[in-house]
Amino acid sequence: MDSILDYDTVELNEEDRSLRIIDQTLLPGRIEIIDLTTPGEIWDAIYKLKVRGAPAIGVAAAIGMYVISVRIAQTCADNAASGATGFDFGRFCREFKKQKEYLNSSRPTAVNLSWALNCMDRVCREAVEKGSANGIPDPEPVLEALRSEALRIRDEDVATCRRIGENGLTLIGPGDGVLTHCNAGQLATVRYGTATAPMYLAHERNYGLRIYCDETRPLLQGARLTAYELSSAGMDVTLLCDNMAASLMKSGAINAVFVGADRIAANGDAANKIGTMGVATLAKAYGIPFYVCAPMSTVDPSTPDGDHIVIEQRPASEVTEMWYTERMAPEGVKVYNPAFDVTDHSLITAIITERGVHRAPYDFTKEQ
Amino acid sequence: MDSILDYDTVELNEEDRSLRIIDQTLLPGRIEIIDLTTPGEIWDAIYKLKVRGAPAIGVAAAIGMYVISVRIAQTCADNAASGATGFDFGRFCREFKKQKEYLNSSRPTAVNLSWALNCMDRVCREAVEKGSANGIPDPEPVLEALRSEALRIRDEDVATCRRIGENGLTLIGPGDGVLTHCNAGQLATVRYGTATAPMYLAHERNYGLRIYCDETRPLLQGARLTAYELSSAGMDVTLLCDNMAASLMKSGAINAVFVGADRIAANGDAANKIGTMGVATLAKAYGIPFYVCAPMSTVDPSTPDGDHIVIEQRPASEVTEMWYTERMAPEGVKVYNPAFDVTDHSLITAIITERGVHRAPYDFTKEQ
Repeated sequence: MDSILDYDTVELNEEDRSLRIIDQTLLPGRIEIIDLTTPGEIWDAIYKLKVRGAPAIGVAAAIGMYVISVRIAQTCADNAASGATGFDFGRFCREFKKQKEYLNSSRPTAVNLSWALNCMDRVCREAVEKGSANGIPDPEPVLEALRSEALRIRDEDVATCRRIGENGLTLIGPGDGVLTHCNAGQLATVRYGTATAPMYLAHERNYGLRIYCDETRPLLQGARLTAYELSSAGMDVTLLCDNMAASLMKSGAINAVFVGADRIAANGDAANKIGTMGVATLAKAYGIPFYVCAPMSTVDPSTPDGDHIVIEQRPASEVTEMWYTERMAPEGVKVYNPAFDVTDHSLITAIITERGVHRAPYDFTKEQ
Repeated sequence: MDSILDYDTVELNEEDRSLRIIDQTLLPGRIEIIDLTTPGEIWDAIYKLKVRGAPAIGVAAAIGMYVISVRIAQTCADNAASGATGFDFGRFCREFKKQKEYLNSSRPTAVNLSWALNCMDRVCREAVEKGSANGIPDPEPVLEALRSEALRIRDEDVATCRRIGENGLTLIGPGDGVLTHCNAGQLATVRYGTATAPMYLAHERNYGLRIYCDETRPLLQGARLTAYELSSAGMDVTLLCDNMAASLMKSGAINAVFVGADRIAANGDAANKIGTMGVATLAKAYGIPFYVCAPMSTVDPSTPDGDHIVIEQRPASEVTEMWYTERMAPEGVKVYNPAFDVTDHSLITAIITERGVHRAPYDFTKEQ
């Protein structure tokens, strides 16, 4: 089988101007690269977690908006050809805005989604303004600006993750046991991951870490994705069910916990995959440092604290049917299935971004 | 579909002298009643969790030993018929002891298994001694004594669970939200369960409890068994993944946690299904009382504390393959899969037995 590391998780397919992703719902059994071009396909890929992880969603949304813009421009140009008024920037912008809102509705919790879409929106408005000022309306410079912005967001993600890795690496030593929850790995970004970035860099430097992955029910991102990508990279990986973390911590095997985040409030409260706050509570009880790794784009200064973060509820069938094959719970039983929880900043030892290692009281406006 | 409540979980089939159980590995999809007669079948049923839960294992082992004794006596009698020395009590006792040790090896952690087997052993030795003293050796009184003892253990289990329920009921009120982990339900005993006994009694008295069940990976006893049996009984049941308990506790939905135990040390440390100590740690952090419900037979005075409890490690495939159908983790990944963990007595608010509500410092020799 090919290794996942041979592919970038999210990419622009320049040839046919499509969003190219690895369909993560099929891992670890099958590596399938898919090309998405319509707004419906892109929305669906984000909603169904074919692409997931806050940074990867941001990059996918940015590249996706560029791909969609190409299609919108095509429609506006076709109309212009049949009519007489030239390229209709007004219509282009209305349609752009509509599709941007549509993509933004695919996952409510990941702040990188709206962050990346807002970047694209700003660039679009500026380019349109500039284009409208130049006599003959031409969509190409607008599309080129959107393409550049999407690729800038992608490249920045790679650089950011590498810096998170360097910063996180200062907190662990050779031979350490490190626990992670869900997948804040390469598959959640373009390369390196966030929570896994220190592990990839430690591996490059032969630290000989022992990595422990929570399987992360209900969608098993830890088993299917994290254990898979870190094993592929040659690390020493042990998989466990979520409810085994306490026993492992008590045994002394864990020196530090690294997790990602989908949204970090101004006070340091961090929303991440369901189960994270439980791991944080246990880590505190067993005296183990708990680190949240995320790019600055995950910090949402407009959210004062965790109580203001909307938590997405997901379908009961994710819990009642084991991997959608066999029913494992009685018919009609009620299900509690939030996609995320919020870890109180009091449970977080430090938040690691590309800027540095932040500690309470948090002030994300300052350089570390 | 029939309701599980129409059947006792473990029973003696008087007609063909077999151990009759509900095959719990097939629930909730199928209710299959199976009759076991050979030592291999009975060992396998305990090892493979067709019958599980410490009290139910104890009753199954007792009835199983009676069933096996009937077969041993048959062999000894056949030999006696072909030879000339009459019924060979010495041989019967040697074979009884061998099969008792064999059954005892099927699950190392459940103390009720060895407790029940030791009860049967004592009755066997007494009856054999009495029988040997009476001129002509006759196995029937020995078998009858073993049958009575097995049924006594069964009946006592029902009465014990009912008393645990009454004692536990003093700790909750109408409308309370109650969380449980794994299955310490009717399916883990003969009737009522241990952790669920207060819930069954509360339901009889229209308390309108809200019951929350951890699904309990890897074998999903919470989803497959507890959610199933409590729903069948008409209770308000909500299922959650193990890693969602912290979020639920923080939301204020939980007023108390009730779990079972497989072995309780003299100092109150309690071994129970993996994940229990994590729930206990979380309950303490969120100020929620945490109760362990178990019959006195689960208390092992010869085990001073949790460090002396042997924890069974189970196969990796339980974790890596989702319900044995589809592989959900990379090939060759290491797996941490202990069947149990030990909850420190400092995390336990009280231990509820048929004798009463015990609190630290624990002295199980005293009446409560």
